[in-house]
Amino acid sequence: MDVSLILGILGKLLTAYSFAMFIPLAIALFLKESSIIAFIITIMMTGITGVFLNRYFKPKQLKFGIRESFVIVAGAWIFASLFGALPYWFANAVPTYIDAIFETVSGLTTTGASVITDVEALPQSLIFWRSLTHWMGGMGIIVFFIALLPSTGSGAVNLFNAEVPGPTNEKVQPRIKDTAIGLWKIYTAFTIILAFLLWISGMDFLDAIENSFATIATGGFSTKNTSIMYYDSYTIELILTIFMILAGGSFGIYLTAWRRKSFKPFRNTEFCVYLLIILVSTVLIAGSLWYNGGKSLDYAFRHALFQVASIMTTTGYASADFDQWPAMTKIILFLLMFIGGSSGSTSGGIKVSRIVLLVKTAWSEMKRTVHPQAIISIKMDGKAVGPNTIVMLGIFFFLYIVTFAAASLIIAGTGLEPFDAMSAVAATLGNVGPGFGAVGPTSNFAGVNLFGKSVLTLCMLLGRLEFFTLLILLRPEFWRTKKNW
Amino acid sequence: MDVSLILGILGKLLTAYSFAMFIPLAIALFLKESSIIAFIITIMMTGITGVFLNRYFKPKQLKFGIRESFVIVAGAWIFASLFGALPYWFANAVPTYIDAIFETVSGLTTTGASVITDVEALPQSLIFWRSLTHWMGGMGIIVFFIALLPSTGSGAVNLFNAEVPGPTNEKVQPRIKDTAIGLWKIYTAFTIILAFLLWISGMDFLDAIENSFATIATGGFSTKNTSIMYYDSYTIELILTIFMILAGGSFGIYLTAWRRKSFKPFRNTEFCVYLLIILVSTVLIAGSLWYNGGKSLDYAFRHALFQVASIMTTTGYASADFDQWPAMTKIILFLLMFIGGSSGSTSGGIKVSRIVLLVKTAWSEMKRTVHPQAIISIKMDGKAVGPNTIVMLGIFFFLYIVTFAAASLIIAGTGLEPFDAMSAVAATLGNVGPGFGAVGPTSNFAGVNLFGKSVLTLCMLLGRLEFFTLLILLRPEFWRTKKNW
Repeated sequence: MDVSLILGILGKLLTAYSFAMFIPLAIALFLKESSIIAFIITIMMTGITGVFLNRYFKPKQLKFGIRESFVIVAGAWIFASLFGALPYWFANAVPTYIDAIFETVSGLTTTGASVITDVEALPQSLIFWRSLTHWMGGMGIIVFFIALLPSTGSGAVNLFNAEVPGPTNEKVQPRIKDTAIGLWKIYTAFTIILAFLLWISGMDFLDAIENSFATIATGGFSTKNTSIMYYDSYTIELILTIFMILAGGSFGIYLTAWRRKSFKPFRNTEFCVYLLIILVSTVLIAGSLWYNGGKSLDYAFRHALFQVASIMTTTGYASADFDQWPAMTKIILFLLMFIGGSSGSTSGGIKVSRIVLLVKTAWSEMKRTVHPQAIISIKMDGKAVGPNTIVMLGIFFFLYIVTFAAASLIIAGTGLEPFDAMSAVAATLGNVGPGFGAVGPTSNFAGVNLFGKSVLTLCMLLGRLEFFTLLILLRPEFWRTKKNW
Repeated sequence: MDVSLILGILGKLLTAYSFAMFIPLAIALFLKESSIIAFIITIMMTGITGVFLNRYFKPKQLKFGIRESFVIVAGAWIFASLFGALPYWFANAVPTYIDAIFETVSGLTTTGASVITDVEALPQSLIFWRSLTHWMGGMGIIVFFIALLPSTGSGAVNLFNAEVPGPTNEKVQPRIKDTAIGLWKIYTAFTIILAFLLWISGMDFLDAIENSFATIATGGFSTKNTSIMYYDSYTIELILTIFMILAGGSFGIYLTAWRRKSFKPFRNTEFCVYLLIILVSTVLIAGSLWYNGGKSLDYAFRHALFQVASIMTTTGYASADFDQWPAMTKIILFLLMFIGGSSGSTSGGIKVSRIVLLVKTAWSEMKRTVHPQAIISIKMDGKAVGPNTIVMLGIFFFLYIVTFAAASLIIAGTGLEPFDAMSAVAATLGNVGPGFGAVGPTSNFAGVNLFGKSVLTLCMLLGRLEFFTLLILLRPEFWRTKKNW
């Protein structure tokens, strides 16, 4: 393990991170807000640490193994969380540093769960920083870094794989820097278009940018206390719905389609199933709202579609108080939190492709009950999926459910009702945002105690980095110098 | 597919089943109960159908393939449910035939969920039949049949494997008839000892037998409306706790230990983890009852141990109204419903051995994130577990969770609150019995509508037959005559 290389790269990253903080500082200066000092101190602390690490541990070459990449990715997320939390704390926006970390991790992991009760009372600069963490975390801190990096050694591929979500088969890409730059271009283009549309639909300029950040990153931090309910606008909801659905789809598909100038990449199993689930869930929820909930069909379809798009893409915006909806509706939304969006999107959750592969495997494995020695091959979009990938899929699913179960237990122990506790965990583990009841759309996570907040913070990170990147660090063998592990 | 062979064997089975009904009939005659007619008609219908099928489709030889076994096992459970439900219906103990089927399937699958609001008002003969279904289903209708069968062809092994729960590695046994008889001897011995102990502890004679049936089968149908709370006796609770824990352990271990006159078979990973989970859960729940719930330590430990043993072994008895306990306590019990007891026991749930294997695999597979081509071998009690078994385990877990999710959705649609609905499904799928809230320990399933009851009935069967035995029947290839599938 080349520790000095790792620290050197993390130093480079922190330096870049401190530059990003100049934007909220500029806003604070322009609006003469009280948060100026908070940002100046944070930038100094982050920048100095970054420069120090980078100078002191100057990496001679950017070549490193797979183990180093895991440590760099984990380290990058932890550093970004710890330093990104400082402005909230210094500006007294939250009671404790742990609350500040919760808010930052919620931002970077694009969860959108908040501990701030009165968002509208925050300085504009801090609201912007909050939305900016979404945007940086959405495509991935590391992917951003790879795009910036002057020399892309063999290590970049490893870094990319350790951070980007989704089953392994499509992860390794040649010319990783080009891919990273291409992804960021599309990501930025979507953000600009959406911000413009929101602006002409009646949002303030800053509001439009911030909501665009939160939507394209499938984050869901709103600039208002009542989320999207505040605007109560058909147009804004429709625009957001379309862009949420886009952001929950694979950016890999968009990149390929754009490069090849073709719609063919959209004929993808995951993408089709993803749209199908949105459609079916919307119809079921609208039906339940109309039949059980006694709402008008107009209300039912409008809010069913928005809420399904919001929860399934793990954005977490609320256009209505869905905590008051019928029980069946809540269970559908609860289940969508687990499914999540597409792999290669900015969304969280288990991901549609994993669910599709597990269903395919289950269907095929039926055969094994009759023929124990049968050779079973699973295909996805024409490509064979190896048995190792299938085992990893099963284990990923198992880890997801076990983590959910264990964390629900702990959160219920902090005093939340069972379903509220489960929804709090599902919403953080899936990087969704709000849950039900005590942590519902019109409430927030401020009422959870500090221990509970720490556990939920860990859930957000585990969900975003898809378990293995963090859990591998727990194995003692990982740290031993022996090359063969 | 040899249909006439299948029908012939099912006829034999029905004939045996009708003989079992003579016991409650005798009780009805002895006590001059109103249910006499109900039992006479049922016995005639069951017996005549059985004899007819067996005569008309007289099987020439008891040799059949793996596909036939699946159909026989599924058919046996369905026939036993349909005919076993008749006494309830004829005696007007339930409003509809679907309710009667629910009650019978709940009995045979050793779930113990009831739709009968006032159990104590039932004729004694019907209460006995209800408990007897537990006892017959506990060890398995088919295992019972194999023990009775005069000639055990090669088919018996297949039948055994299609019905007996647990991962596949220990399923295939030589001399299957000896095993089946050995299992039934231990099962019967446990039942007699427990009945005797309960009797001398103050229960009525019939009551003692019925509760013994329900305990050893990990069923949980109580003869009283308030379950074990009715007796409010330390001694009875302690005796039941011990025997519930025994019944949730592997009968395979008991058989081996008895044959070898040795305690060595108890040094088994699954058995130790099983006891460990009971211990840890009891301490956690007792702690929560004392700390959050303000109960005395005496109350806390007494009821924590009983309830943990009851829920984890999927019995479902209640010694206290655990629906009123703190949220964390409820989540622990809820999770125990999923874990269940040991494989080779009469309990339901996912089973401890599967959980242990999945955890072991998850831990080992971490390695693969760093070394994608690593060869990973999983061992359990010194034996290697093949990759096919691991994939099946993952798929079993996936099917369990997906079925749980889908059924929860439907049950919530019938009007139950989210957590109540989820607990209703977890309790039926895991063959536990009571859930929380509307289906809690002091309530029952009578309030669920007929559609909901049908779905829960299916959950009980899917849980008891561990998915594959029923789901395989859905594949069209299964029914084609082509030999090679």
